[in-house]
Amino acid sequence: MSPLTGQRPFFRSRWVEVPPGVEELAPETLAPGFAAAGVPCGLKAGGGTDLGIVACEGEAASALLLTRNAAAAAPVRVCRERCDGGAIQAAVVNSGNANAATGEAGYEAALAMRDGAAAALGLPPAHVAVAETGVIGVPLDLESVLTGVQAAAGAVAADGGGSFVDAICTTDRWRKSCTLRLDGVTVSAQAKGAGMIQPGFATMLCFVQTDGALAAPEENLRSACAASFERITVDGQLSTNDTVLLQATGEAGRPLPRELLDAVLLQLALEVVADGEGATRTGRVEVRGARSGEEAERAARAIANSPLVKTALYGRDPNWGRIAQAAGMALAGEELAELGPEEIDAAELAGEGREAELSVDLGRGGESAHLYFSDLTHDYVSLNAEYTT
Amino acid sequence: MSPLTGQRPFFRSRWVEVPPGVEELAPETLAPGFAAAGVPCGLKAGGGTDLGIVACEGEAASALLLTRNAAAAAPVRVCRERCDGGAIQAAVVNSGNANAATGEAGYEAALAMRDGAAAALGLPPAHVAVAETGVIGVPLDLESVLTGVQAAAGAVAADGGGSFVDAICTTDRWRKSCTLRLDGVTVSAQAKGAGMIQPGFATMLCFVQTDGALAAPEENLRSACAASFERITVDGQLSTNDTVLLQATGEAGRPLPRELLDAVLLQLALEVVADGEGATRTGRVEVRGARSGEEAERAARAIANSPLVKTALYGRDPNWGRIAQAAGMALAGEELAELGPEEIDAAELAGEGREAELSVDLGRGGESAHLYFSDLTHDYVSLNAEYTT
Repeated sequence: MSPLTGQRPFFRSRWVEVPPGVEELAPETLAPGFAAAGVPCGLKAGGGTDLGIVACEGEAASALLLTRNAAAAAPVRVCRERCDGGAIQAAVVNSGNANAATGEAGYEAALAMRDGAAAALGLPPAHVAVAETGVIGVPLDLESVLTGVQAAAGAVAADGGGSFVDAICTTDRWRKSCTLRLDGVTVSAQAKGAGMIQPGFATMLCFVQTDGALAAPEENLRSACAASFERITVDGQLSTNDTVLLQATGEAGRPLPRELLDAVLLQLALEVVADGEGATRTGRVEVRGARSGEEAERAARAIANSPLVKTALYGRDPNWGRIAQAAGMALAGEELAELGPEEIDAAELAGEGREAELSVDLGRGGESAHLYFSDLTHDYVSLNAEYTT
Repeated sequence: MSPLTGQRPFFRSRWVEVPPGVEELAPETLAPGFAAAGVPCGLKAGGGTDLGIVACEGEAASALLLTRNAAAAAPVRVCRERCDGGAIQAAVVNSGNANAATGEAGYEAALAMRDGAAAALGLPPAHVAVAETGVIGVPLDLESVLTGVQAAAGAVAADGGGSFVDAICTTDRWRKSCTLRLDGVTVSAQAKGAGMIQPGFATMLCFVQTDGALAAPEENLRSACAASFERITVDGQLSTNDTVLLQATGEAGRPLPRELLDAVLLQLALEVVADGEGATRTGRVEVRGARSGEEAERAARAIANSPLVKTALYGRDPNWGRIAQAAGMALAGEELAELGPEEIDAAELAGEGREAELSVDLGRGGESAHLYFSDLTHDYVSLNAEYTT
């Protein structure tokens, strides 16, 4: 337990390098200058909190990363076409409906939701981002959403981080959020992971606020995501709705330590994997000795997405042959020295830990890559097969 | 039931175009001029039949297709380096041990197995192929194998197809074999599918014999496989041991009807999918309206290998959104018109049938591709997680 928050410490993966001196604050209170709220508006069955707003008082430097899925959801297209990603002051988010594959009407609804939030907050529409997550192919109940937008805009507060994170979650089993301080700079962040209201597909959303200063926010966010959210896989499925927003006001008068941003995003990414659908364990596979980074990446993805490796992680089976097979598949048609127990370390598959580290040395070059992945379990099949749309 | 064989008819998928006039014979009796046998040699726990030989009396035109996995098993490497793929007269096969990732000793063992069969049959070693399937990373018990080779070579008979198919099976739930006659030409074939002795990885083996004449056997076999075994996926995993052998003696004095070869390989491929690990249903997805064949193929593979689509097939959930998401992932970074119920037909996901047909029209070109795939079930997870190496 953390003495400051009375909760489990935020940094709890052995794979995260925690910056020395970082202080953990109550995650409900956002970085100075930011306010948030979450309210129920009727999208989630059972009346759960499903509409959230996070906003900063003044201007902010920002970066907004969006899914590359060619069937991107309406809110993603609104962000792409109608937002100034470098000057986002607020985001409005709902859970319970992804507003994906909803046609022109869906686009108009996402735009109206964004415009409604901008009006309620008194901000230029292009400075407000919109994100949604939940079931797909179902028309958004815009009237309920707009009522929720009014309520949330009236309720935003510095300690509203808890209700905001509730508003972005779907079937997440726990909250993924933090507020941290280092060198006079505060960072707060909230993420949701691989869960679903109804079987649709997993979506990842993440919002990061800081009073630190950040030059080249997009470049920094891309680079931090490349080492965190782009290193994870639950089921190998690129969502239609993935969104990451970073806002930096610079009010602290000091730079945001990059190592803090990296640590926060990596821990949150690992939380998303650990809370993957039906997941019980997280694996980290490292591929070394590749001829190129692309080759290492290809092999690491083949291993991390192999249902045979994922079931071995679940079943605690140190089955290195499945790792050899997946690596060989990734390099199909090429010459590869035989991979055996000398080159493959799969011992932790059989261990007791919730985090298992695997590695394979291809022995043909100096490049490497790693990936974090969840196991494939009976609960994954149940979650995705036994509920119907 | 077939009146000739007293068994279920061989052709039982609606997706196979059965050549008119084809006659179904007892699958135990091979095409004229061929003989086979299967014996137990001690590799399979419980003393099951695990060593098989199939051979023709004289010379044959042949084609031998092997996995492209870069971590190919020892028998595959022996076939590649030491066999004349166009003049194969016999194949020796064992189940129970894949002889994969077994190093130099494994290669020598596969070579000794092949040479032992050649000596016992009085054939040039380069005219004998070797194939193996089963657990990986375990040294092959060569002494037992060589004893089995002697016994099998002494037992080969024209009606040995039944024991031969038993010798190539691992956890297959049913025999996959046939003997068929059309236009005075007979074809017999035996395949094994996605099963395992112990969790290793699925391997597909297939042997085809005919007394028909076949010009350009490799070209014809490649083309027939492109429409059958290369159109299927159980778990998206390319095996280290996949092998397909076609032998044509030409003794019938008439050409092998190509449509018969196509129908046989497609039905056997569909049997392999239907008997996939834990499988209860087979899907066929067709992607139309693609800009290129490669694009259609990429989208079809993304859909057929999506665990979300595979669990929807299992759960009889007509979840078209998962098909839109997978297609969008395959085209990541490109512009794509929105995919909805107009473009996607997923109705048969919810049907009662064991075969379900899905389609999606990308609406951006005239190319198409299709793929056959199994569902992802609780039994798949159990099979691959609950047994240990």
